[in-house]
Amino acid sequence: MPFAPFDWIDDEARRRAAAGLVRTLRPRPAESGLLDLASNDYLGLTRHPEVTAAAAEAALRWGAGATGSRLVTGSTTLHAELERELADFCGFEAALVLSSGYAANLAALTALTGPESLIVSDAGNHASIVDGCRLSRAATSVVPHADPDAVRKALHTHGGRALAVTDSVFSVDGDAAPLGALADACRGGGAALLVDDAHGLGVLGEGGRGALGAAGLAGGEDIVATLTLSKSLGSQGGAILGPARVVDHLVNAARTFIFDTGLAPAAAGAALGSLRLLRREPERAGRARAVAAELYDRLSAAGLTAVRPDAAVVSVRAPSAQAAVRWAADCRSAGLAVGCFRPPSVPDGISRLRLTARADLTRDEIMAAVATIVATAPSG
Amino acid sequence: MPFAPFDWIDDEARRRAAAGLVRTLRPRPAESGLLDLASNDYLGLTRHPEVTAAAAEAALRWGAGATGSRLVTGSTTLHAELERELADFCGFEAALVLSSGYAANLAALTALTGPESLIVSDAGNHASIVDGCRLSRAATSVVPHADPDAVRKALHTHGGRALAVTDSVFSVDGDAAPLGALADACRGGGAALLVDDAHGLGVLGEGGRGALGAAGLAGGEDIVATLTLSKSLGSQGGAILGPARVVDHLVNAARTFIFDTGLAPAAAGAALGSLRLLRREPERAGRARAVAAELYDRLSAAGLTAVRPDAAVVSVRAPSAQAAVRWAADCRSAGLAVGCFRPPSVPDGISRLRLTARADLTRDEIMAAVATIVATAPSG
Repeated sequence: MPFAPFDWIDDEARRRAAAGLVRTLRPRPAESGLLDLASNDYLGLTRHPEVTAAAAEAALRWGAGATGSRLVTGSTTLHAELERELADFCGFEAALVLSSGYAANLAALTALTGPESLIVSDAGNHASIVDGCRLSRAATSVVPHADPDAVRKALHTHGGRALAVTDSVFSVDGDAAPLGALADACRGGGAALLVDDAHGLGVLGEGGRGALGAAGLAGGEDIVATLTLSKSLGSQGGAILGPARVVDHLVNAARTFIFDTGLAPAAAGAALGSLRLLRREPERAGRARAVAAELYDRLSAAGLTAVRPDAAVVSVRAPSAQAAVRWAADCRSAGLAVGCFRPPSVPDGISRLRLTARADLTRDEIMAAVATIVATAPSG
Repeated sequence: MPFAPFDWIDDEARRRAAAGLVRTLRPRPAESGLLDLASNDYLGLTRHPEVTAAAAEAALRWGAGATGSRLVTGSTTLHAELERELADFCGFEAALVLSSGYAANLAALTALTGPESLIVSDAGNHASIVDGCRLSRAATSVVPHADPDAVRKALHTHGGRALAVTDSVFSVDGDAAPLGALADACRGGGAALLVDDAHGLGVLGEGGRGALGAAGLAGGEDIVATLTLSKSLGSQGGAILGPARVVDHLVNAARTFIFDTGLAPAAAGAALGSLRLLRREPERAGRARAVAAELYDRLSAAGLTAVRPDAAVVSVRAPSAQAAVRWAADCRSAGLAVGCFRPPSVPDGISRLRLTARADLTRDEIMAAVATIVATAPSG
């Protein structure tokens, strides 16, 4: 052959190595012995015996896979039950479950817009929203982070179909979007509002009903929410919540729904198990928020630069990508798992530790985590 | 508000209804009583007791979810084991597991190309490949179905990085791509070849090792394969197989890998269980092909227009979308589940029944299925 088609990959690998940005997978054992402040298991449910039993029972009863597209053989009454209970819990008319939150955002953005539409997207939105905008072929206006006035202005430039999209809680810094003001801007401009509540469900709102409920927007005829089942609900999958006509439309038009295998029964069963547990133990939501606030207070008091958390994510700044990597590694050596976000995973290029405040962390665990993070902090 | 942002959805719903193209979800119970020729469970493994037990055990041992991105907390040694065994089984150096085959195609196409690349894509490729091409921002040349000469010509128009992409077995008609000739065309043009083996794994090749192995292409330095874990392996998820440097690159660059929650342990465990079962019972692959050939022979002998199957999918033409829907409904009333493909899910606008030839169908079941399909066939 004239040249090897993948030789360019070696050049890119060298560039990444030189910039200190190489990522490698570090598989964990079933029992790592680490204190976990890195996962998105905000409510501590992923290993809850009721939830894992629900997953196991669903696999044994329904099979290991959904066996096909939701439109062919992949819809079970378990999926329908999960959709009913999710919609009811979050205060929406209908819900649609997909195989991931990523797929949910791609589905909503592509099927609810089109080449003649305008999408107004927050600069801090998740990668799946950015990809959904690209895939939609709509004109996309990226506006400054958390800026309802910018959304209003962008909508005023456009006459036709329009939709604004935002995360409810931004994954990197843990700050919340101004949903009420965004909804006002959308209503003034005749636009729909799509909110990715991946990090709000289970943490925000009464009993963890999410950011839309907390903002009084759940169930609005112009409001659509996307969710993940893989964070607070400790499972896998995603969902779209909205008016019934919107969900019916997605069933007919959303390619990442139609042409994907349905969510595995075990994942649907586990999400349903978590949802029922959260209904019985609504205090888990407030507890996750309280743990986050305590982490923030104690780290700030120790002189670290953190972002005041609006939900269960606490972001702590690091002076550089290399320092962040070293800091996270030092935490790990001391028995603490923390997230480490750095370019290109951060929209602003600022590296940070990302801590997640699980509802089931004990006081001793919080104190130990803070002590480790402070003791290993880079100087300067 | 000036107007309701989703009112256009009602117009689209009316248009779909007038065209007879409304899709609705029909959730099935755990035991439907129907004879299943509609699912993609080609080897009959999704409800195999070993496979469901592997799913249940993984959920109980590892938790209901992966808890985060594969780059943070979402990689377990179970994922690593599955990746090793998948790569080894299919004859590739390395593998990467994602949450769906859709995500795998988006990952491979976006991370292995770029704005200056050319992608040459078969006109019959799956929706996830079409979306991957769009998302990649590469120039995409769509070439006639199964036409290596067209691929060769398209590649000759381009000087830089190039990749040709094809399904190994096309989902709608069940025909196979000319992989050897496509690989020759790619090598002549300095291009990589990406093959989606969703419908080949478990069915084609020695013991179900897939279409790439069958074509003598597995493990080539210019060859990448994508797979699903949700068809022959009866689980959920997707994978990318290729040279180790390609997989390392994907870990660093593929957004639908980096920014997605890892595959749930139950799904990884089930896929691993199926893979081990298939190694022990390699005859399942040939049996699926033999069942497909028998279905084709009997349906053709009865005067129906079917496509000679290259794998486990048998496509039978229907005179119209409405006739296809009625035909499938009549089969269902008679106790037989068949797939019904119609616009916009078919690239050529031709509606058909889609039958899947499960390896575990008995002679009596095959005869009953054929009798029902023939008896309910539309006239003309």
